[in-house]
Amino acid sequence: MDVADKYDKVVELAKRRGFFWPSYEVYGGVAGLYDLGPLGAVLKNRIVDKWREWFVGKHQDIVVEIETPVITPYKVLEASGHVRHFTDPIVECMKCGRKFRADQLVEEHAGIKVEGMSIDEINKVIGEKGVRCPTCGGGLSDVRLFNLLFTTTIGPYSQDVGYLRPESAQGIFTAFKRVYEAFRERLPLGIAQIGKVARNEISPRQGMVRLREFTIMEVEFFFDPENPSCDLLDRCDGKLRLLTSDLRVKGVDKPVELSAKEAVESEVIKTPWMAYWMWVAKNFIKSLGIPEDHTYFEEKLPHEKAHYSAQTFDQLVRISRWGWIEVSGHAYRTDYDLSMHMKHSGQDFRVFKKYDQPTIARVEKVLINKALIGKVFKERSTDVINAVSSVGADVLKTLLKTDDEYIRIGEYLIPKNAVTVQEVIEKVSGKHIVPHVVEPSFGAERLLLIVLDNSYSEEDGRVVMKLPRDLAPIQVAVYPLVSDDVLEQKAKQIYEELKSCGLYVVYDDSGSIGRRYARADEVGVPIAVTVDHQTLDDSTVTLRDRDSKAQIRVREEEIVQKVLMFLRSSVAITQL
Amino acid sequence: MDVADKYDKVVELAKRRGFFWPSYEVYGGVAGLYDLGPLGAVLKNRIVDKWREWFVGKHQDIVVEIETPVITPYKVLEASGHVRHFTDPIVECMKCGRKFRADQLVEEHAGIKVEGMSIDEINKVIGEKGVRCPTCGGGLSDVRLFNLLFTTTIGPYSQDVGYLRPESAQGIFTAFKRVYEAFRERLPLGIAQIGKVARNEISPRQGMVRLREFTIMEVEFFFDPENPSCDLLDRCDGKLRLLTSDLRVKGVDKPVELSAKEAVESEVIKTPWMAYWMWVAKNFIKSLGIPEDHTYFEEKLPHEKAHYSAQTFDQLVRISRWGWIEVSGHAYRTDYDLSMHMKHSGQDFRVFKKYDQPTIARVEKVLINKALIGKVFKERSTDVINAVSSVGADVLKTLLKTDDEYIRIGEYLIPKNAVTVQEVIEKVSGKHIVPHVVEPSFGAERLLLIVLDNSYSEEDGRVVMKLPRDLAPIQVAVYPLVSDDVLEQKAKQIYEELKSCGLYVVYDDSGSIGRRYARADEVGVPIAVTVDHQTLDDSTVTLRDRDSKAQIRVREEEIVQKVLMFLRSSVAITQL
Repeated sequence: MDVADKYDKVVELAKRRGFFWPSYEVYGGVAGLYDLGPLGAVLKNRIVDKWREWFVGKHQDIVVEIETPVITPYKVLEASGHVRHFTDPIVECMKCGRKFRADQLVEEHAGIKVEGMSIDEINKVIGEKGVRCPTCGGGLSDVRLFNLLFTTTIGPYSQDVGYLRPESAQGIFTAFKRVYEAFRERLPLGIAQIGKVARNEISPRQGMVRLREFTIMEVEFFFDPENPSCDLLDRCDGKLRLLTSDLRVKGVDKPVELSAKEAVESEVIKTPWMAYWMWVAKNFIKSLGIPEDHTYFEEKLPHEKAHYSAQTFDQLVRISRWGWIEVSGHAYRTDYDLSMHMKHSGQDFRVFKKYDQPTIARVEKVLINKALIGKVFKERSTDVINAVSSVGADVLKTLLKTDDEYIRIGEYLIPKNAVTVQEVIEKVSGKHIVPHVVEPSFGAERLLLIVLDNSYSEEDGRVVMKLPRDLAPIQVAVYPLVSDDVLEQKAKQIYEELKSCGLYVVYDDSGSIGRRYARADEVGVPIAVTVDHQTLDDSTVTLRDRDSKAQIRVREEEIVQKVLMFLRSSVAITQL
Repeated sequence: MDVADKYDKVVELAKRRGFFWPSYEVYGGVAGLYDLGPLGAVLKNRIVDKWREWFVGKHQDIVVEIETPVITPYKVLEASGHVRHFTDPIVECMKCGRKFRADQLVEEHAGIKVEGMSIDEINKVIGEKGVRCPTCGGGLSDVRLFNLLFTTTIGPYSQDVGYLRPESAQGIFTAFKRVYEAFRERLPLGIAQIGKVARNEISPRQGMVRLREFTIMEVEFFFDPENPSCDLLDRCDGKLRLLTSDLRVKGVDKPVELSAKEAVESEVIKTPWMAYWMWVAKNFIKSLGIPEDHTYFEEKLPHEKAHYSAQTFDQLVRISRWGWIEVSGHAYRTDYDLSMHMKHSGQDFRVFKKYDQPTIARVEKVLINKALIGKVFKERSTDVINAVSSVGADVLKTLLKTDDEYIRIGEYLIPKNAVTVQEVIEKVSGKHIVPHVVEPSFGAERLLLIVLDNSYSEEDGRVVMKLPRDLAPIQVAVYPLVSDDVLEQKAKQIYEELKSCGLYVVYDDSGSIGRRYARADEVGVPIAVTVDHQTLDDSTVTLRDRDSKAQIRVREEEIVQKVLMFLRSSVAITQL
């Protein structure tokens, strides 16, 4: 098989058999939107369930899952920095009006990588290299930044701007205190979320790889920055393949191999929990059938990182068409998000860390001039005093340092001379800290594509989709060997029995048995049950393994148990 | 317990223990948006899984599930009628600028039901009854229609309007032909979808009952209108409680009780498959623990129905606060949606129905004046001819009947004299039909609320959340009876073993055993394992049932099996 063709074959099969296809095709389609068909939806759900098992179920002592809305009010994404930073550079053709991503255009038509360049620098390159509209040859406008948030309004007032979330993380951060309380106020605490996000890409390409709407699966993992150690690192066997930014700058493209623990000790990975979740990510990807040498982690260079991240690794996987593509991002978000929301909302996002023993210490106390507040805010003064009290002394100190005459806390503008922060000596039982966060984040649809691309194989000109047994959308096929009422009746009875166990089963009696095997192999059905004339004599059927093509005969009453055992393990069919 | 307080208690518990709470509270919240906390997210997933089992898994021969985007282009919702019809009446206070739902305002302040009234009639009532702004007493503007679609733009061009889907159905209709082909071109065919939808309510109230964003679970079930019978009706035991529109008009509020089959035979339900899915809906709701006499189906009156429906029943369930609320809608959408998309897209949505024997018949043929098309459309004429050919003769006949000089097919305006429909006599092997559709549709978050409201009970001043065993988010609790290293170690070992079976388990060693039982009962943990001193002697532990409080002693090696058996059945713990 020509590897260059493989991707096209996967996409053709995906359309024909019902894994995925472009959305709204009957209206000409919309770039960056895809439907998952009957097989694709089941496959995606199996990938999501597996992610949930690895990141939530196996870690239920320290990780919980929540669900927050896609629609997000302006204030939240303004605080998080997305309104300002979540942009791509765009240019417009001054003749035909078409719009392009400036960085892609310059890279393709001038061969220059612009990542990390300022807008002015990209403009300069466009001028110097004479880049023009690739469609009509017209001149280009100046580059500007285009915000990738889908914008809407919430309710009937046009000023109530909202967005579709570009990540699920902000719903987690804004709910952090409620979850922390429901979790009985313990750290570390991982809060997972699986759900739709949307990014208004300027001109999405690469089919299912770059979507305008996709399913994110992420964990915001909160830990005490004064005690960042992770006792699970000792359990992390095997090596992580890491292409550090140091190596990349030197032009090296071969990753180093370090255990998670070694990567932390050598400071290649900046914080222990990040190394731990990268190890989980590696194993999760392996559980999808991806060979270990088809994946590694690439550290992002400073100008490649998101605005909130102190260190980022992308996990890359090989795909037949584009080489290496990103399947997960691992960001050390520090206390960036909680601090920003604390500042913008005026609410306290800190957690109280109790000392083993109370100590005598210098502490910073917030003193509020209640008389002045009362004069300025009248009947609202209690609310204002509560708002100020809920903000930590360190945050207030920062706010007080600015040149403004007022500090903003939530909706209130408070005169600076109404608030002071003073150092006093006190007996203290603990302290308030802002937790730090590491974030592993995956896209489900891209994984679906990778799983299909990785599983696709051809044997004697026929397609066999070698999906891991526990991911296959259709789990069992049942056939009568030939067209015969008695065989068909028996086969249907077995079909009903397998279905009643919660399995997805296909019954197929049309065409030769060879054609039916081929039809099932093409969509990765791992095991088939065939009823033949011998079945009527001795009540046995054949079980056939999709991959080895080996067949065994089993007694009718063993079918369910053998099939389940086969699907849940990787044992050879002859060993059942 | 005072029933009036019950709902408030459920909401308080939901916030405190992590079922749900208003989203973005730290920024003052957004009406109509709720977060699901750690327990709520699991509970919702269990409800979704159960729906999937009832509506997809058990019907896998005839129902498949797909997933299409939330973001929907203008053309699709224009064709479906949502751009024009998906509205609520709104008035604005001319003094303070606040906006209100006109129907709610008139009902609350003039005591008059306005459903079914025209805009002019509502205006008249407002004038006659002197309805004013409930907040500031100002005069009101004229009533206008406010579209409830969340609007956005797709990509960088401001004219590319898109919406957040208000139902998942349109993604199913536009993908119908692809799914039909992947399903090997058979009818009946149900296409299910579970996913987020958004409705920009003017002023949502009732907390989790009326959300601006929620999870819809629906099936568009396609069948042959010439052969609408449903052979599964014979299996439908029990009665459906039906409050027909006839009864409602007569002022009767007691439903009649008919079996699904009787309801079809007496023409109370207009089409057999609708009756079948209502029977499934009844059983699904029962499986959530709702008593049968807490639910019935109410037929909508003509002015209450959506624009696409020939008959609609809402399934109502009793909830402590608001009486009866809608949990599912059952609409007979006929061929409305496929026909509209056929007309607007110019694509063929019909399916070919093969006769058993070819017959001689009068058939309507489309004749196209290709010369004229060529003259008008020049190089696009092949596309135009293809577009015309793909539309059925019956649709073209309807289009040709209008007074316009042109007919619109997809993007083309075609002169009427270029197309004629003529009757000819031919040997035909089958015919093209537009399938009809019935739709059962549910909201997951509302079900979650109802399940909690229904399960909430108090015993001796303590809360017991009597969730069905298979819905409980936390499935097992494990306790050491008293603080003791050996007991704790043993309890932790059992905890790990139960977790490794994929169960959600809580380990709790803080406070008295009574307090720990209470904490678990409050969130509906169905069964608890307690390790005590006797465990060290004879390797037995106690299992305690949340509801009966009965306890049994079992041997350590039986724990997993007994717990699983208990969770999967409704058998008494003493019978395990």
